[in-house]
Amino acid sequence: MSETGAATVDDSKDPSGFLSEIIGASITVKLNSGVEYRGELQSVDGYMNIALEKTEEYVGGQLKHKYGDVFIRGNNVLYISQD
Amino acid sequence: MSETGAATVDDSKDPSGFLSEIIGASITVKLNSGVEYRGELQSVDGYMNIALEKTEEYVGGQLKHKYGDVFIRGNNVLYISQD
Amino acid sequence: MSETGAATVDDSKDPSGFLSEIIGASITVKLNSGVEYRGELQSVDGYMNIALEKTEEYVGGQLKHKYGDVFIRGNNVLYISQD
Amino acid sequence: MSETGAATVDDSKDPSGFLSEIIGASITVKLNSGVEYRGELQSVDGYMNIALEKTEEYVGGQLKHKYGDVFIRGNNVLYISQD
Amino acid sequence: MSETGAATVDDSKDPSGFLSEIIGASITVKLNSGVEYRGELQSVDGYMNIALEKTEEYVGGQLKHKYGDVFIRGNNVLYISQD
Amino acid sequence: MSETGAATVDDSKDPSGFLSEIIGASITVKLNSGVEYRGELQSVDGYMNIALEKTEEYVGGQLKHKYGDVFIRGNNVLYISQD
Amino acid sequence: MSETGAATVDDSKDPSGFLSEIIGASITVKLNSGVEYRGELQSVDGYMNIALEKTEEYVGGQLKHKYGDVFIRGNNVLYISQD
Repeated sequence: MSETGAATVDDSKDPSGFLSEIIGASITVKLNSGVEYRGELQSVDGYMNIALEKTEEYVGGQLKHKYGDVFIRGNNVLYISQD
Repeated sequence: MSETGAATVDDSKDPSGFLSEIIGASITVKLNSGVEYRGELQSVDGYMNIALEKTEEYVGGQLKHKYGDVFIRGNNVLYISQD
Repeated sequence: MSETGAATVDDSKDPSGFLSEIIGASITVKLNSGVEYRGELQSVDGYMNIALEKTEEYVGGQLKHKYGDVFIRGNNVLYISQD
Repeated sequence: MSETGAATVDDSKDPSGFLSEIIGASITVKLNSGVEYRGELQSVDGYMNIALEKTEEYVGGQLKHKYGDVFIRGNNVLYISQD
Repeated sequence: MSETGAATVDDSKDPSGFLSEIIGASITVKLNSGVEYRGELQSVDGYMNIALEKTEEYVGGQLKHKYGDVFIRGNNVLYISQD
Repeated sequence: MSETGAATVDDSKDPSGFLSEIIGASITVKLNSGVEYRGELQSVDGYMNIALEKTEEYVGGQLKHKYGDVFIRGNNVLYISQD
Repeated sequence: MSETGAATVDDSKDPSGFLSEIIGASITVKLNSGVEYRGELQSVDGYMNIALEKTEEYVGGQLKHKYGDVFIRGNNVLYISQD
């Protein structure tokens, strides 16, 4: 059991490595609510707080809103996929 | 795995850097409930607790309320975007 | 990344400073449920647990109840605003 | 930022001081569900886990049940008020 | 503020003392869902994870099910009362 | 108060002892959703993450699905009972 | 009681061992929402954050979407089963 309270899994292959590799890439962030944010991944931290640039908001597949920089709080994130 | 239990991601580009850069800027804070608070970002901490000045509350895009200083608890925040 | 697991933001301007400044002031505490408690801020801690004096409960803007001292658990708090 | 991850507020006036002062007093504990438990506060800890003696359960203001000792888990608590 | 992030309350009277005293006693565990489990308290830990023996499940006051040993996860617990 | 933030209860009788004793036994895992998983308990950790072998999924008492090994995340667990 | 606040269970057989063994295998990840993601397990960490390759999204058993790499946040996961 890791000190942080979560079961320790073989850290050699750790999902956060996946996240580091897609910094600067175009990604889709799907929230638990179903809303999607697409943009360029500027940075992400261990709690999946995400800073996106040139961000677009999609609801039901429809473009609803364009932003510049958006900071999304990690706890709302369902998944991150590389476009 | 960071001591705090979250996967460590390359900290050189950390979303909190994004937040520091927009202190004093006009921002929109969208809550999970959909309500938006617009105002001047006075300060924000690591849990996304936010102190806003000259704050306006928007529900469904309609201005509902004007406040002075408002302290918003981080766990309700969906995203922060710079206006 | 701070030891506590949250992204470290520039602590010189920290929302808790805002809270310290309004000890003794008349404030409105809005809960996630929409219910509001108004009273004199006796004390608040880092988890936004709040002790209020001369407290009034408002539901839909209507005064529903008067209390003496009330201790509100922080996780229910949406925002705190100075009246 | 305190080590525990919450913004540090001026601890000289801390809500837990309020709680210590009402040990042995008659209190009302309101849960997030709206149900109220009234009784004598036997003890309370930092997570607002509460041990009550001579406990009465009120639903919609109606007395529903009488218990001896009841141990209430803190995360369900909305507020504690001194009768 | 205790190291664990919760306001420190006078620990001389701590609700967990209450729990230790009722090991072996017949208790009722009410869950947030309203379902009740009655049985003999075999053990309980600091997170209110509960091991019950000779357990009965009541829904709306009706006996629904009999078990041998049951291990209930603490986060679902509303209260524990001594029968 | 234990360092981990939960009230310390007499650890001599700790629910996790109950869990260790049923490794390899046939158990029923009831989730908060009401769905049940029956199988052989391969392992369980302190967060009630459970690895089951020869797993069967029951919804409303009806067998819905058979799996080989299944890893269930602890936070969804309501209770574990030994068949 | 482990330092991390969870009851310590016999760590010799720890569910995370199960997870390490299925790296590279074809798995099904069922979310609390009922949606399923099938793909090759690239990596998983102690919080069940999962990186999947060649990912397919199934809703109600119907293939809805194909992705390349997808990073799923652990807190949404109900179970992981090996296909």
